[in-house]
Amino acid sequence: MNTPNDTRNDARTPVTVLGLGAMGRALAAAFLRAGHPTTVWNRTPGRAGELVAQGATAAGTAAEAVAAAPLVIVCVLDYDAAHAILEPIGARLSGRVLVNLTSDTPERARAAATWAAGHGIDYLDGSIMVPTPVIGKPEAMVLYSGAREAFETYETTLKALGGRAPFLGEDHGTAAVYDLSLLGFFFSAMAGLVHGFALAEAEGVAAKDFAPFTGTIAGILPPIAAGMAEDLERGAYSGDQDNIVMEATGIAHVLEAARHRGLNTEVLDAVKALADRTIAAGHGNAGFISVIEEMRRSSTSA
Amino acid sequence: MNTPNDTRNDARTPVTVLGLGAMGRALAAAFLRAGHPTTVWNRTPGRAGELVAQGATAAGTAAEAVAAAPLVIVCVLDYDAAHAILEPIGARLSGRVLVNLTSDTPERARAAATWAAGHGIDYLDGSIMVPTPVIGKPEAMVLYSGAREAFETYETTLKALGGRAPFLGEDHGTAAVYDLSLLGFFFSAMAGLVHGFALAEAEGVAAKDFAPFTGTIAGILPPIAAGMAEDLERGAYSGDQDNIVMEATGIAHVLEAARHRGLNTEVLDAVKALADRTIAAGHGNAGFISVIEEMRRSSTSA
Repeated sequence: MNTPNDTRNDARTPVTVLGLGAMGRALAAAFLRAGHPTTVWNRTPGRAGELVAQGATAAGTAAEAVAAAPLVIVCVLDYDAAHAILEPIGARLSGRVLVNLTSDTPERARAAATWAAGHGIDYLDGSIMVPTPVIGKPEAMVLYSGAREAFETYETTLKALGGRAPFLGEDHGTAAVYDLSLLGFFFSAMAGLVHGFALAEAEGVAAKDFAPFTGTIAGILPPIAAGMAEDLERGAYSGDQDNIVMEATGIAHVLEAARHRGLNTEVLDAVKALADRTIAAGHGNAGFISVIEEMRRSSTSA
Repeated sequence: MNTPNDTRNDARTPVTVLGLGAMGRALAAAFLRAGHPTTVWNRTPGRAGELVAQGATAAGTAAEAVAAAPLVIVCVLDYDAAHAILEPIGARLSGRVLVNLTSDTPERARAAATWAAGHGIDYLDGSIMVPTPVIGKPEAMVLYSGAREAFETYETTLKALGGRAPFLGEDHGTAAVYDLSLLGFFFSAMAGLVHGFALAEAEGVAAKDFAPFTGTIAGILPPIAAGMAEDLERGAYSGDQDNIVMEATGIAHVLEAARHRGLNTEVLDAVKALADRTIAAGHGNAGFISVIEEMRRSSTSA
């Protein structure tokens, strides 16, 4: 229970941010905007200037930075980079809450949790689901899993980074599971976006004319995902509105048009191959979610 | 100019729908709901029952169906299927407006336009951008290109199918260009969605728990597409907020986690390969849109 002098979960909570890449800087700036005394540190110096101008304290060492706050955020390229920073200061982190917002695999998140437990560190693993310009906004989403009490203690403070902060459970790997599952969706979609621009461009359609139409496609994906989830939950694929044979025909048209214009089609070739194998396996009357049957087989054994 | 007795562009306009697959039935049902006298026909009989119950007239032959309305919609699997239906009744279509909502390549749309011109048919090519359940709603989008006057004459009638009906120009292939460019985005995203479900499932995350999170990813795609368009218009890739080296690291994490769980990674392998070649070509500091450099090279010459 917070007492009137408890500064753990209000705008007086001091925070430390380790790692000042584009995302680390966005995180620190969001804490500053929310009024938190913020200490920052980066392995390579010279990244803190703008943040200091906004009120941050630049620490000379990671150990110094950690000493300044009960809540320490680390956000670097991957867990190897995070470990290189944290390992030498494990004892200093003891008794503090460490929130690792570095994106990596569930296995590495769990290994980091084991390391943290060995040093008496309350450890939360988090995954940032939005690009830097969205950080700090009510719609920004950061996923958390791991130490539940640490999350509950600092929930309001953490919401300075994004208004949507679901706690996914005490398994430290769960945030990374969601993160990587969503990242795979994101980068497949990103490749599809770029392919769309390339095909439109090959026919003289200006990028600025094409871009607004992508919103219609993006908008139909969440209800489709909800329908896919229903199919998966009941263990049957509906194909009454659309089936994978029709969809494969559409993909074949895209491939034909793209090849005719000398474009690279490797991503869509792989999508088509999955669809074709799904049809060959007897799912022709099912919807696109039925390609999960092929997704479940490793590429090498396919 | 419409006269008081002109029924071309109000709810009294008779329409004919050729092809009663799931989409054709949705189109006919939308016309019926909007009050249009609607005649329907399908190559294989037995598909019109529900539509007749809603007030449609089922024609015995395609020729009969076409004779019933000045505005004829065709929506079948591909242009080969459309041509097989339309070729024998070319003379009957003369002087009518034909709207082909079958999805296919720009080349085939242009060839169909040449055929239609040879028969004195006012021809519009259209592309439906939403799934069947959305047809007839204000947010449903159908793209049109080709005969401008025909579009303007029947614009209100056509909007019974979807409130968003942009006319993209007089080149009959343009709607197909947008269609295929968006379909490539759509199916890449769909493959990414299914991969996300597969990876979440491998860690015991229920599909219904995972699905709602996909909305956050879908929601950030349109502003990202707008940023990509800006980069393409000015001919320079910004990478100040994110760069492809960091993004490739994220994709590598997804691949590692997916392979570790025995999942198929062919689609994401192709995305990673594009990113790696883009980095190797010297664009490491640029954002993801820079993979368009590799998209512009045909797969065989890559």
